[in-house]
Amino acid sequence: MPKISQKGIAMPASPIRKLTPYAEKAKKEGKKVYHLNIGQPDIETPANMLQAIKDIDFKVWAYTASEGTASYRKKLAEYYNQLNYQITPEQIIVTTGGSEAINIILMTCLNPGDEVIIPEPFYANYNGFACQTGVIVKPILSYIENGFALPPISEFEKLITEKTKAIFICNPNNPTGYLYSLKELEALKTLALKYDLYLFSDEAYREFCYDGKSFESPMHLSGLEENVIVLDTVSKRYSACGARLGCIITKNQKVLDAALKFAQARLSPGLVEQIAGEAAVDTPKSYFEQVNAEYTSRRDLLVKSLNEMDGVFCPNPGGAFYVVASLPIDDADTFCQWTLESFDYENQTVMMAPATGFYSTAGAGKNQVRMAYVLKTEDLKKAMICLEKALKAYPGRVTPTQITETLHNL
Amino acid sequence: MPKISQKGIAMPASPIRKLTPYAEKAKKEGKKVYHLNIGQPDIETPANMLQAIKDIDFKVWAYTASEGTASYRKKLAEYYNQLNYQITPEQIIVTTGGSEAINIILMTCLNPGDEVIIPEPFYANYNGFACQTGVIVKPILSYIENGFALPPISEFEKLITEKTKAIFICNPNNPTGYLYSLKELEALKTLALKYDLYLFSDEAYREFCYDGKSFESPMHLSGLEENVIVLDTVSKRYSACGARLGCIITKNQKVLDAALKFAQARLSPGLVEQIAGEAAVDTPKSYFEQVNAEYTSRRDLLVKSLNEMDGVFCPNPGGAFYVVASLPIDDADTFCQWTLESFDYENQTVMMAPATGFYSTAGAGKNQVRMAYVLKTEDLKKAMICLEKALKAYPGRVTPTQITETLHNL
Repeated sequence: MPKISQKGIAMPASPIRKLTPYAEKAKKEGKKVYHLNIGQPDIETPANMLQAIKDIDFKVWAYTASEGTASYRKKLAEYYNQLNYQITPEQIIVTTGGSEAINIILMTCLNPGDEVIIPEPFYANYNGFACQTGVIVKPILSYIENGFALPPISEFEKLITEKTKAIFICNPNNPTGYLYSLKELEALKTLALKYDLYLFSDEAYREFCYDGKSFESPMHLSGLEENVIVLDTVSKRYSACGARLGCIITKNQKVLDAALKFAQARLSPGLVEQIAGEAAVDTPKSYFEQVNAEYTSRRDLLVKSLNEMDGVFCPNPGGAFYVVASLPIDDADTFCQWTLESFDYENQTVMMAPATGFYSTAGAGKNQVRMAYVLKTEDLKKAMICLEKALKAYPGRVTPTQITETLHNL
Repeated sequence: MPKISQKGIAMPASPIRKLTPYAEKAKKEGKKVYHLNIGQPDIETPANMLQAIKDIDFKVWAYTASEGTASYRKKLAEYYNQLNYQITPEQIIVTTGGSEAINIILMTCLNPGDEVIIPEPFYANYNGFACQTGVIVKPILSYIENGFALPPISEFEKLITEKTKAIFICNPNNPTGYLYSLKELEALKTLALKYDLYLFSDEAYREFCYDGKSFESPMHLSGLEENVIVLDTVSKRYSACGARLGCIITKNQKVLDAALKFAQARLSPGLVEQIAGEAAVDTPKSYFEQVNAEYTSRRDLLVKSLNEMDGVFCPNPGGAFYVVASLPIDDADTFCQWTLESFDYENQTVMMAPATGFYSTAGAGKNQVRMAYVLKTEDLKKAMICLEKALKAYPGRVTPTQITETLHNL
């Protein structure tokens, strides 16, 4: 039998989806499972976006230009220019989801063996994309104790070698929900210019900033035009994860030219999605106000409930719809499987993503889980009750002191 | 300014799309351009497939399973089992177009530096996917003189090294339209088993076989279950190129397991497409009969017209909707640009794809062009008149003898 490639063996399984078989089994046994593991919002997609799908009037479902349709790119540029990105439609390449945007940019900007510095915990699939492209991830630990703020720039500098080609941030952050300040972005600008690095900015959660905080992008930093590449998606903005519609934005013409060749090889992004995406730009402001109010109240509920549990700590994130919490447990992977396999409270249980999959440093996040607040308040309340009961019943429960000791040994 | 990667520089521009700026300019100058360059059919997408898009009734445009929805895979398996592939839904991974299927399989099965043997001319973007994944394409020349039949197996064996991991065919072939016989596939089977190679079969044009010839797939060969991987797409089958919906099919469980990890990293294929793709499986037989009759008559017109032109030779292909013809010209790239830039006949001209982009061997196909018969008969006739006039007016015209001499020196 012919062999699987080294990458085929090395590719990580999704930490968000790897427990799915256990969840399926729990459901078959009649348990109600509260899904906090995956960033699939329950929020409805804007009606105008869905209507655009129903209104399609073409007879031939044809390829579009590899870089996306002219009309969608024009409309997208309007959206970004309302955010003061000061870009033209030609500075946008439409992609099949944010995933493809990341993949194309890694291939365009980094050679196999080149290094990208990413504050961790980070979106787990960055590991997969790095594996695919042969890029080396250099993680830099951020700490739950200070809410996962950007680590000091001096820590970044320690990691920089001649192989370092880029810094990669996700803002607001998945999984921590941390929202970077303009000051933090300016510190990254200094670093990018000093060492001639790309600054990749994954802004999938741009719309979700809370407590009156405003979103800042590296696109707002003057003098960094050749370095900044924004990676975006409509998945979370319009609760349209299944659309698989994203884009690359940069003012660096050489990057655009090279990225287009990768885009040409795969021919084009989807036509229907681009039609829907164009309509989505006109989604009324009230939609986002309503969604943000809903997420804020869910976050408040979740953070309060978690911090009231014995031995649990959860920072209050400024954006996105995730929290990372530390739990009084020996091992998050074991615990998250145990809640599905061996636990129930009144025939209900909770599914979470072990935070280990969001760290690249071995051993980090061992007592942390990521939770997505993508359920209605009533269900979130029940999920929190389940979690509290689970923590009390879990055989691998430890005291917070034991965790602190482990962390200090990392 | 940070640098572009080596791959970003090495990636080939699409030979099918690279002349687009010249076509745009010609159109701006008021010329009518007949597009024979791109495999975007003018045939209408089946009405039931488009209706399925209009009938969507979900409120949240959600991710699907990474491997595709259960219901679409079930329906797809029915389609393939009508072709006697004898597969289960679990042996299918749904992808974003055939492009993603190819990319995932190259990453799953081959290491960078590993070799894949591909009869040439071949679909130009295989070069792009090989560049992306670091795979080395070992081309094996097929010849226009015998209609681009499979080269003798002894020629394949000469190319096999310890780095050879796979043979890659496209059947019916893009760009030549050649349809492989069962005997040819059996010869490849012997080779694959002898050297423990994967056999990748790109079957995008399966539905388009003419003159009563039947389609044969390596899936029909017993004893080759662990070696065969079919790469497919709905793009051509249902004239739905803009759907970006394809799949990987194999009975090799290890390949399925590893490929799924790549599929998980990019989360999921599109939801709307899978709904439409599921409906498309029920497209009435009459649709295909009508489409095949239309393509057959176009092919007949094209092949006849071409062979009647002085110094032109075009084999009669058994499938797909392309022909490769040799022309009495010095250089197909120059000629195809010249027809757009410097030529018109009654304010009309023709756009073709230079065949050089479909060869990997330098210098091969220099006097050949690929034409897609994706225009209505009336337009094809006018395009052929343009081509005949262009060949007479072209300053780089040469005699067929000169071409033969060049070929023998390859």
